[in-house]
Amino acid sequence: MSQSEVITLAQALIQRPSVTPKDEGCQTLMAERLKKLGFSIEELFFVDTQNMWARKGQQSPLFCFAGHTDVVPTGPINAWHLDPFAATVQDGYLHGRGAADMKGSLAAMIVATERFITDFPDHKGSIAFLITSDEEGPFINGTTRVIDVLEARNEKIDLCLVGEPSSTHQVGDVVKNGRRGSLTGFVTVKGIQGHVAYPQLAKNPIHLVSPALTELSQTVWDQGNAFFPATSFQISNIQAGTGAGNVIPGELDVQFNFRFSTEVTVEQLQVRVVSILDHYGFDYDINWIINGLPFLTAEGSLVEATVKAIKQVQHIETSLETTGGTSDGRFIAQTGAQVVELGPCNATIHKVNECVSIEDLERLTDIYYHILREILA
Amino acid sequence: MSQSEVITLAQALIQRPSVTPKDEGCQTLMAERLKKLGFSIEELFFVDTQNMWARKGQQSPLFCFAGHTDVVPTGPINAWHLDPFAATVQDGYLHGRGAADMKGSLAAMIVATERFITDFPDHKGSIAFLITSDEEGPFINGTTRVIDVLEARNEKIDLCLVGEPSSTHQVGDVVKNGRRGSLTGFVTVKGIQGHVAYPQLAKNPIHLVSPALTELSQTVWDQGNAFFPATSFQISNIQAGTGAGNVIPGELDVQFNFRFSTEVTVEQLQVRVVSILDHYGFDYDINWIINGLPFLTAEGSLVEATVKAIKQVQHIETSLETTGGTSDGRFIAQTGAQVVELGPCNATIHKVNECVSIEDLERLTDIYYHILREILA
Repeated sequence: MSQSEVITLAQALIQRPSVTPKDEGCQTLMAERLKKLGFSIEELFFVDTQNMWARKGQQSPLFCFAGHTDVVPTGPINAWHLDPFAATVQDGYLHGRGAADMKGSLAAMIVATERFITDFPDHKGSIAFLITSDEEGPFINGTTRVIDVLEARNEKIDLCLVGEPSSTHQVGDVVKNGRRGSLTGFVTVKGIQGHVAYPQLAKNPIHLVSPALTELSQTVWDQGNAFFPATSFQISNIQAGTGAGNVIPGELDVQFNFRFSTEVTVEQLQVRVVSILDHYGFDYDINWIINGLPFLTAEGSLVEATVKAIKQVQHIETSLETTGGTSDGRFIAQTGAQVVELGPCNATIHKVNECVSIEDLERLTDIYYHILREILA
Repeated sequence: MSQSEVITLAQALIQRPSVTPKDEGCQTLMAERLKKLGFSIEELFFVDTQNMWARKGQQSPLFCFAGHTDVVPTGPINAWHLDPFAATVQDGYLHGRGAADMKGSLAAMIVATERFITDFPDHKGSIAFLITSDEEGPFINGTTRVIDVLEARNEKIDLCLVGEPSSTHQVGDVVKNGRRGSLTGFVTVKGIQGHVAYPQLAKNPIHLVSPALTELSQTVWDQGNAFFPATSFQISNIQAGTGAGNVIPGELDVQFNFRFSTEVTVEQLQVRVVSILDHYGFDYDINWIINGLPFLTAEGSLVEATVKAIKQVQHIETSLETTGGTSDGRFIAQTGAQVVELGPCNATIHKVNECVSIEDLERLTDIYYHILREILA
């Protein structure tokens, strides 16, 4: 019974408390199942992160399931109704940290692959698993390092399905076929500290920066396009002041973030921000972090297979979207691969009482199976 | 020798480590000296603050010396070249916490009064001392409470000399004949917290408030007048953000301060600030603290006597100013008294290695003596 199989495997994964960047044996468990199917397993441990590259077959196309075994911390344990690592099944839901993000998806990938290889032992192409234990962390020693290894030996993923929880109300209602880019800026505005009673001897960095922040927050960066909403700019943090009411602060720190479409580049955004800041003539430092470049799989065999599989299993038209946060899909897409993200509903992810519908997880297994069949049978 | 007397008394006061709101016996020491001159002493202890009202004579005019025995904390003790409570005399300076602010002035007041009463035992009017131990603290249980007691029994100070360190380069070069008002505002801007990837579900309080802060910081509140510089507005603290780079904060806190002239009232400033904030249509709370109302002693016998005494002792024209921070003079001026502030140079006050020139302290004693003679002899 594939139904019970996916839940049993998801439970075994949830019961391994792999808070990022720990793996706690999850990948070993997956590797044991894959070895039985004829996969060769490559363990790639970098610094603090366990990664696995498992592959069966040498032909094209190479279809890859991608995901992560690490989970975010539980948060306040007393706020959980059930033990977050007990993986309890109750009222039609599987409960626990990682149930939706994304141990349920990992279990569905394994069980769908087992069913597919049993049904189609002589399928075309190749199947791979790219699994990391730092997707929830700083994403330095995870997927990006594995991609480096693959690129170095010219091993190319053609089609990649990332198991991130993309769905909203029922599994498959939303598929991500791209993601916006994310660019963070840190600005330190330099004034001169002083006593509020003697403002002529000081230079107030809050006064200096506020018109620039107004202009930045009101700027239209682009109009987006058919696949992407318009680029957005948000200030996430601002801080200046000693706490004392009679001191003009000497410095101000402000941090902002762009979620940007394929209509602008990192360099264009940087040039425009610097030009706005320079216009106001104050002294400042700026540092940037590129969290991720935008990617898009507008069309192709993977999108077609995914849309079709969802229609077959769920009898709905899926919605292709590029909204939301970032995922490791961005690193894989940079190699030229087609990438889509499809997983269970995301309403409880990163929250206390995370859970996944058992019905959804079984349907997700079916959808993954249909995608494999569509592409490789 | 009056010279050695003022230094010896200042040393005895500095050696009592009366960090605000402590008095550590300073007022008892002063009271002993004043009792010998025929002063009646009233000890007024409120909550945590030691206050003293000492008076000799029942006639008008009532001339009052005002000051405080408390000092600000030493700050990092290792940064001091000399023990801050040893009251060491070295290279022409008396060193220690409170040497300039304002135990040196207290010693000068006592010694000048002793000399004056010895020289003019049958002087006209009355002399009083209004001394507190919380001028450096929250100024709740100090001068303002003593003034309440005096007002309740209709005891009026006519002329008041506050010993705050008013001088810049040499003692007497600057006298404060008024002070600006100080008004502090605390604004909490209410947005809606959210993920930076979904700005349409959030409301960023930093974006909302920045144009209002620009307008507030660029507004001309008044032009000042012959005695006061223009009213100034300074933002002292701003804070918003969780620290995380992907969260739009739900609230922003900002604190600002006005130093205001007699050309505007507290109510006018409040109405104008609220009108500017309201114009931008965001949700906010505002709270106010009136730290002090402006006061001015434009002319009169006290200013005349002070200017003349400084000219006699120092052979300079003093400068009458209303700039700088607040002092307890504001509470005394509200009763209708003429108030001036005159004390030693303020370059080292509230800093490590506070000190006062011995020459200045002796000249200050002479000036105080001349003022008493000018008014009461």
